[in-house]
Amino acid sequence: MQLARSDEKSDYILAPDPARAGLTRHVVGTDHLGAEVELSVVEERPLTIFLNRQEIVTAMTIGDYPEYLALGFLRNQGMLADDDVITGVDFDEELETVVVRTETVTNHEEKLAKKTRTSGCAVGTVFGDMMEGLEGLELPATPVRTSWLYTLAAKINRTPSLYLEAGAIHGTVLCEQDRPLVYMEDVGRHNAVDKIAGWMLREGVSAEDKILYTTGRLTSEMVIKTAMMGIPVLASRSGFTAWGVEIAQQVGLTLIGRMRGQRFMCLSGKDRLIWDTDPASVTEEPRKSGRKGGKG
Amino acid sequence: MQLARSDEKSDYILAPDPARAGLTRHVVGTDHLGAEVELSVVEERPLTIFLNRQEIVTAMTIGDYPEYLALGFLRNQGMLADDDVITGVDFDEELETVVVRTETVTNHEEKLAKKTRTSGCAVGTVFGDMMEGLEGLELPATPVRTSWLYTLAAKINRTPSLYLEAGAIHGTVLCEQDRPLVYMEDVGRHNAVDKIAGWMLREGVSAEDKILYTTGRLTSEMVIKTAMMGIPVLASRSGFTAWGVEIAQQVGLTLIGRMRGQRFMCLSGKDRLIWDTDPASVTEEPRKSGRKGGKG
Repeated sequence: MQLARSDEKSDYILAPDPARAGLTRHVVGTDHLGAEVELSVVEERPLTIFLNRQEIVTAMTIGDYPEYLALGFLRNQGMLADDDVITGVDFDEELETVVVRTETVTNHEEKLAKKTRTSGCAVGTVFGDMMEGLEGLELPATPVRTSWLYTLAAKINRTPSLYLEAGAIHGTVLCEQDRPLVYMEDVGRHNAVDKIAGWMLREGVSAEDKILYTTGRLTSEMVIKTAMMGIPVLASRSGFTAWGVEIAQQVGLTLIGRMRGQRFMCLSGKDRLIWDTDPASVTEEPRKSGRKGGKG
Repeated sequence: MQLARSDEKSDYILAPDPARAGLTRHVVGTDHLGAEVELSVVEERPLTIFLNRQEIVTAMTIGDYPEYLALGFLRNQGMLADDDVITGVDFDEELETVVVRTETVTNHEEKLAKKTRTSGCAVGTVFGDMMEGLEGLELPATPVRTSWLYTLAAKINRTPSLYLEAGAIHGTVLCEQDRPLVYMEDVGRHNAVDKIAGWMLREGVSAEDKILYTTGRLTSEMVIKTAMMGIPVLASRSGFTAWGVEIAQQVGLTLIGRMRGQRFMCLSGKDRLIWDTDPASVTEEPRKSGRKGGKG
């Protein structure tokens, strides 16, 4: 699918809508002065994902894209193959369920027998299978200009998000060159990535020329998901874990972290980088950029 | 178990040891100027937890307290009851496993049948059971002085941690009045909480006079774990989710978030608070406090 180039304001195909009803809730509390205070907090709702007749998992989510979340989750777990024919994705708002139906019914109970609590907000992932899925994986040698990274960070930082409104959630953005395309947020970092994977699957969007940008930590799980999605570049404001770096190096993913203002660190796949920017020309982040971006 | 009062430097019974071997790794990368750079990143290792003969879960952890993690995880999942007699906790460093042995062997496979991905880095939690475990729960009316909260935040912010050293991890601290006692960190927020629960179980430490302080978001899962541990107060630098607030109000937990400098917000259980401090007397955080503390 060809994605048309557009001007900055309308770069986004999907972006957060802080004004959308149902995503945040006003609550009343007491501040440090003992005065009553009203604030906006993000909603969390359970969503139970089914693959045909099989209940797979219940995810806690802000509830904006249940179909994408279900599709992407199953895809990233290896429960939906590229050649699986999806015959339906049925969201029931009352029951808080999504059923993904395929032409060929598969049995994934064995995969569910092994559960992994990973470092980054994941549940029920089949760790062994995930590592296997990486074997023989080759990511494309798509070049990445450092100017794109700086432009993306600036554009993404300026994008209104639920994060800036209500706090307490993680964002991940699918990008192409210097254009952010799909910005997903959720209370769990991996929900945001899965929603992007679900969107790409649904819309038939290619991965090899994309960059994934996240506010969250670059853990092994994040690196694995990105690689399995076929995206060759993963960037974040936040820091790394040793295993995340190791896996990135193993699969040849370009891994860039601690991206703030002029600075960043590339711990894997630097050969994709084209150094076309003098960092001194990049505007430093104002102190109150509004985006803490998780751990450093 | 009586915990002796001590001076500030030695308040901690357990605190992070950034110099401890094996918790971080030096990696080499490239910075934004194209120069080679060396940095410290946290380790992530899988740890497979067994309850007697049953494999329960594999957790990704920094690997500092595998026994506490296993005990606390099982306890917080409701797989270890208060009256269970623990006959052994065996960590095998090579196999990366911990086996918790009890006098009476239990079968928890039914609990494992339901997996919940929650908003906060948990895996394999039995959501339905967790909500059930809260029914009829009563938390003690232990008073909390706001001066303690300010003192704790200041002390904790000054404590050297892996977070400040290497980034990318979450910290949770068990406190008593204005004294931080046990400071646990890990790549997954819930690992840190579970390690504290495991320590309390192992050492026979009471919960009703304690405060739990975390750098992470106050999600439903965090609130549920705190309540199930019997701790009546949960505080964080970070923000809330609506369900976290709701559950806190349901169980009567004192929930304090967005604690930075002079400010905080109490969205539940404010009756425990004793307002003994003029916030104007509290030193504002310096801009570069070094602790981003996650989302706002």
